[in-house]
Amino acid sequence: MSRPKVLVVGSGGVGVMSALGLTTVDKSDVTLVVRSDYDRVMQHGYYIKSRTYGEIKAWKPPKIARSVKEAAENNVEYDFIVLTTKNIPDGAMTCEDIIRPAVTAKSVIVLVQNGILIEEPMIKAFPHNVILSGVSLIGSSNIDCVINNSHKDTLKLGLFDNPNISPEVGKAAREEYRRIYQNDDININNVILDDDTKRTRWEKLVYNSVFNTITAIVGLDINSLQINGANDTLFRPAMKEISAIAASEGVEIPTSVHEFFLHIGDGLFYKPSMLVDVRKKQLCEIEVILGNPLKIAARNGVPTPVLSTVYHLLSMVQFRTKIDNGSIKIDQELFRGQDSDKFPEIFAASPGSRI
Amino acid sequence: MSRPKVLVVGSGGVGVMSALGLTTVDKSDVTLVVRSDYDRVMQHGYYIKSRTYGEIKAWKPPKIARSVKEAAENNVEYDFIVLTTKNIPDGAMTCEDIIRPAVTAKSVIVLVQNGILIEEPMIKAFPHNVILSGVSLIGSSNIDCVINNSHKDTLKLGLFDNPNISPEVGKAAREEYRRIYQNDDININNVILDDDTKRTRWEKLVYNSVFNTITAIVGLDINSLQINGANDTLFRPAMKEISAIAASEGVEIPTSVHEFFLHIGDGLFYKPSMLVDVRKKQLCEIEVILGNPLKIAARNGVPTPVLSTVYHLLSMVQFRTKIDNGSIKIDQELFRGQDSDKFPEIFAASPGSRI
Repeated sequence: MSRPKVLVVGSGGVGVMSALGLTTVDKSDVTLVVRSDYDRVMQHGYYIKSRTYGEIKAWKPPKIARSVKEAAENNVEYDFIVLTTKNIPDGAMTCEDIIRPAVTAKSVIVLVQNGILIEEPMIKAFPHNVILSGVSLIGSSNIDCVINNSHKDTLKLGLFDNPNISPEVGKAAREEYRRIYQNDDININNVILDDDTKRTRWEKLVYNSVFNTITAIVGLDINSLQINGANDTLFRPAMKEISAIAASEGVEIPTSVHEFFLHIGDGLFYKPSMLVDVRKKQLCEIEVILGNPLKIAARNGVPTPVLSTVYHLLSMVQFRTKIDNGSIKIDQELFRGQDSDKFPEIFAASPGSRI
Repeated sequence: MSRPKVLVVGSGGVGVMSALGLTTVDKSDVTLVVRSDYDRVMQHGYYIKSRTYGEIKAWKPPKIARSVKEAAENNVEYDFIVLTTKNIPDGAMTCEDIIRPAVTAKSVIVLVQNGILIEEPMIKAFPHNVILSGVSLIGSSNIDCVINNSHKDTLKLGLFDNPNISPEVGKAAREEYRRIYQNDDININNVILDDDTKRTRWEKLVYNSVFNTITAIVGLDINSLQINGANDTLFRPAMKEISAIAASEGVEIPTSVHEFFLHIGDGLFYKPSMLVDVRKKQLCEIEVILGNPLKIAARNGVPTPVLSTVYHLLSMVQFRTKIDNGSIKIDQELFRGQDSDKFPEIFAASPGSRI
């Protein structure tokens, strides 16, 4: 068999471990896009502390590119483009624009990302490419080129509904990715073929749309909030709403799933990634985690009093982050004597992001 | 006429200016309780920058006490006890306990504080004392003994419903306080006799329960949130709920009041006091501003989807403040292997506040 070319985009904890997994299996040629850490990784590699791979002091991906554009130079064509970045459509760049320079007719796009409806803009941008759903259960972080990987790499690999691609073509692409990603030793990594992508993603949302959002707004870990009674006042009511939205899409989530997630972190005082993002003044995945479910709720007439308020408050936190990191500048003079009901219009009409 | 004795409790912006107002009128003997700044004020006084009083470089109240207890030593009896502290029943000390050492049979208690139902615990603690409602519109802050006072001192003085006190007795006490507080020059200060205390307090809540709480949760001033569309997504929906609760108590608030408050700060980028409190890691007045209105809503069957979620989130922020300022310590070891649904019980059962 030929050796497919794989481009891994996003060099966070999941991206680096995905590149390591592919390289270890050694059935593909791997390129990892590394932006801000490029020089450091070229010189010293990553320091990997992994539950399954053990300690690797200076791991370098076979090929490293500074950008997707650089990776695509000289007409290199990738069989797979594996996107492991956060998905922030309201951020500096959409996911479609991030990978666009490397997408060719033959590229299979693998979205190893959280959230709902993430395939829609991708299908719109690349209507004739196969797009696969990857839900990673690896548990991995990258802090200053040190990778801490707590769990075995398990990847749930599924298909998205795509009117332009026949299920057979999708399944063949998925089988090929499984072949190059799956380790013979399933104690190292494991691919699960997932034939209910929709359910998988909605069930993960029960956790992410509730714990990530609420801890990010109030700035405390899950257990501390539970000590203050949040299971009854916030978490269960919010989980019921997410499940009601899922049910309106034909996905019934039993309350045992709520209880499972409510207790999965008992005693761990865990800080979800969104809370960490907000503390670091980084943008968070509000739209794919909560905005998109609420769009579906509105379409299907599902009431969401708790989650809508959480969403609107978190939107304000996201706005604060944009002010803090300088991507939005408010020119207060511009608003003197202005009617506050006209503020959003002024904002929209203002040149650039200086408002 | 005799010179009544007045004890002013609380030496924030409003308390110091109240003591200055009483002293200027010079119809009463004033004692101000000053706790943490006692030595500094005894030595240097306050530096006052006031719109109406101008600049006073070292103003000292006629008498200063370190505590309410010290103020009450030698059986001094006060005709008026004016309470200008924040009202935080879930804090270290209730307002009743704060003033208790100085309360005698003849004390008239003046609550110059925000919120709803603040009279209830006070009437319970001191059933036969007259309790007056003071709503101050002064706009005054005390930062390191520098008093910045932006508005003319206007005090709306009203009666609370009190089954033990006849309206005549209440009105006589109020008239006496007006006499000693009202300046002949109403450009300096002004007492408005308020015969609809309930409406006054509910209308002020339209502002406080909405702007204070939401800005405190998300950490941004009012105008910045309005620029991001908060009038439509959060502020108006929340104001409608507060007005619905008020209506269930017989107080109809026209939407013109909402619009007045939505625009009162246009262009000012104002940070409400609760936002300032949270940033300084100080407890905020969540219960009298939002908890009590929601208790009334529950009693009267008024739906409050937005405000209830805001309340529960703000409760978590208040809990975070208690952790940050050390009044609650979480012993994480205690929770290893515990069921998160039992956390509140463990919390309640724990000795002291170390949990």
